[in-house]
Amino acid sequence: MLNFEYYNPVRIVFGKDTIAELDRLIPPDVSVLMLYGGGSIKNNGVYNQVLAALGKRRVREFSGIEPNPLYETCLKAVEIIKQEKTGFLLAVGGGSVLDAAKFVATAALYTGIDSWDILAKGAEVKAAVPLGAVLTLPATGSEMNTNSVISRASSGEKLHFSSPCVYPQFSILDPETTFSLPVRQTINGIVDAYVHVFEQYMTFDVNASLQDRQAEAILLTLIEEGPKVLKNPNDYDARANVMWAATNALNGLIGCGVPQDWATHMIGHELTAFHGLDHAQSLAVVLPRLLTYCREQKKAKLLQYGQRIFGLKLTGGDECKTADAAVKATEEFFNSLGMKTRLSDYRIDAGDAAAKISSRLKERGTMLGERAELSPDDVSKILTGCA
Amino acid sequence: MLNFEYYNPVRIVFGKDTIAELDRLIPPDVSVLMLYGGGSIKNNGVYNQVLAALGKRRVREFSGIEPNPLYETCLKAVEIIKQEKTGFLLAVGGGSVLDAAKFVATAALYTGIDSWDILAKGAEVKAAVPLGAVLTLPATGSEMNTNSVISRASSGEKLHFSSPCVYPQFSILDPETTFSLPVRQTINGIVDAYVHVFEQYMTFDVNASLQDRQAEAILLTLIEEGPKVLKNPNDYDARANVMWAATNALNGLIGCGVPQDWATHMIGHELTAFHGLDHAQSLAVVLPRLLTYCREQKKAKLLQYGQRIFGLKLTGGDECKTADAAVKATEEFFNSLGMKTRLSDYRIDAGDAAAKISSRLKERGTMLGERAELSPDDVSKILTGCA
Repeated sequence: MLNFEYYNPVRIVFGKDTIAELDRLIPPDVSVLMLYGGGSIKNNGVYNQVLAALGKRRVREFSGIEPNPLYETCLKAVEIIKQEKTGFLLAVGGGSVLDAAKFVATAALYTGIDSWDILAKGAEVKAAVPLGAVLTLPATGSEMNTNSVISRASSGEKLHFSSPCVYPQFSILDPETTFSLPVRQTINGIVDAYVHVFEQYMTFDVNASLQDRQAEAILLTLIEEGPKVLKNPNDYDARANVMWAATNALNGLIGCGVPQDWATHMIGHELTAFHGLDHAQSLAVVLPRLLTYCREQKKAKLLQYGQRIFGLKLTGGDECKTADAAVKATEEFFNSLGMKTRLSDYRIDAGDAAAKISSRLKERGTMLGERAELSPDDVSKILTGCA
Repeated sequence: MLNFEYYNPVRIVFGKDTIAELDRLIPPDVSVLMLYGGGSIKNNGVYNQVLAALGKRRVREFSGIEPNPLYETCLKAVEIIKQEKTGFLLAVGGGSVLDAAKFVATAALYTGIDSWDILAKGAEVKAAVPLGAVLTLPATGSEMNTNSVISRASSGEKLHFSSPCVYPQFSILDPETTFSLPVRQTINGIVDAYVHVFEQYMTFDVNASLQDRQAEAILLTLIEEGPKVLKNPNDYDARANVMWAATNALNGLIGCGVPQDWATHMIGHELTAFHGLDHAQSLAVVLPRLLTYCREQKKAKLLQYGQRIFGLKLTGGDECKTADAAVKATEEFFNSLGMKTRLSDYRIDAGDAAAKISSRLKERGTMLGERAELSPDDVSKILTGCA
């Protein structure tokens, strides 16, 4: 096991009718900027529940945060905060709204010249406006971590930053708010969480037995409970299990003391930036091909995964066949949810994607993977295989 | 799944050579009271590492904290804090030292008449001196929770309290500090952690799929790694896995949204108070008999446990037989570690223990178990079965 430090002070308030707890969680005399996306929270009652809970606090709204939230949009919210001396940011929505709120929270207090440097140059984040969240879409884990991914329309870039300053003070997770999610977002969330686990689990082995089994606990839960929510969107327990699994997939715990990969995410971000794929779609396309490409490096864990998650047997001692079967079972699970896993399914030319993305990675000098040994040329080959 | 709130701000610093991090974790200008037990930390080098890391800070030592730490001992430390205006408590040791430090931390600031009321009457805990820990014995989970169990010599009582005020600010876990543990303490730690999981897992089912699997992840880790540390006490990865498993067994995570039992612990505390059994010994004696006694209420989970942990098959559809086999496998696991599971093994008369303990529970009007349906008479029967 590798050395690690784990610190996660987010207060999770989980369950039915918990949005009303906002009144206890946010100071009574603070001015609140409420950030959200489109109209879904108005249709499913969340918007009204939030406003009722905030009571007589001064609330300013900022709506229109898009999927893959834009830097340009965030800057508008930053202006409001500066003008109104907002004391608390409340993100109401999914990972996009949370990620935007995190960036806005720190950009509003950024003392450098250009807040884009936080994303592009890793400029130090020293402070953030306090923030909290009401999560309505289980997927990214942003409700219980320090991560944020922001896109820039003007340059077509999608970049991330991370800082303990942007831990939400609390996140409210009411599974009932997810009953009305569109099927596509539900599927995306399950796949996103699944791949988050993979980035921290499907790496070279360091004898971190507990972390491996905690990761497998999430995978098994998603495999069991994911189909249930698709079959019956109002199944409370299944929704609750998927929601809590998605949070645990990226709250730092399963990443303790293990190597991490994140190549699938880095490649996927570029697919979204260049070709507009949903984040989870990009992951579902890249992951199976990346696993096949890196089969040798990841073989020990692929075999463990195949045996523990899908009950595969190491018949005849052919490890390569078993590893391949584990990859195939993963892709079949995604497909069974209704998630397509080929670039051609999304009418994207694999050669074109491979050329554009490997070229950008070359410019940046980026090497990917758990040992930083995947070159832009490797990425090109992986993407070509995604046809 | 039940509604829940989860908040755990303890910073875990885990791995080799991490004691030196104390210098970063404790403010430079604070006066420190270092609490510890006997001489083991002087023999294994931990004492010197701690003092070296604390550097030029003013450090006062308080040693002699016993297993099942005494209220009477804690009061002496409280006096020192009041006299010296101690700014930080550093617990160096196992659960007993940590539990004592937690009680001391809050008793020093207690404004009521008698700090025993915190334990005996649930008097409100409003503040505590900041504390941190260097853990040297994986077992109780005290390094990452709000719990403390204190005994009183004068009355023969063993009682607990819990408050977010006594969360350690940090806990340092260096698996190498556990290489030199006596075998008995190593075994005790494994069993203690195992039973902590049981108290939160072996209850009536509420469809909390992830929490069940997270609990099973810890059980499987203890079953796999426990024997390794006994066979080779210097196996770093095995020690690390046991250490991290014990922390995760009682940091609140697997208890999210599920019913909890704790009857084994409550009965075990009385066995320790009246008969001086080690804490883990008391649990190992009570658990199998309690499971058998409550087989009907816990049957669904016992079957799941038997199948997932020990690979038991539900042959012939006889659920009772499979449930009994799961209990037997648990006891055999304890025995395989070298832990004895009968009161007669410890020369304790079961009838005597049953009479004393059920009588005390009757006086207190205590009902036990996940549905508070175990009466003192039930406890008497369970203990009689422990002969």
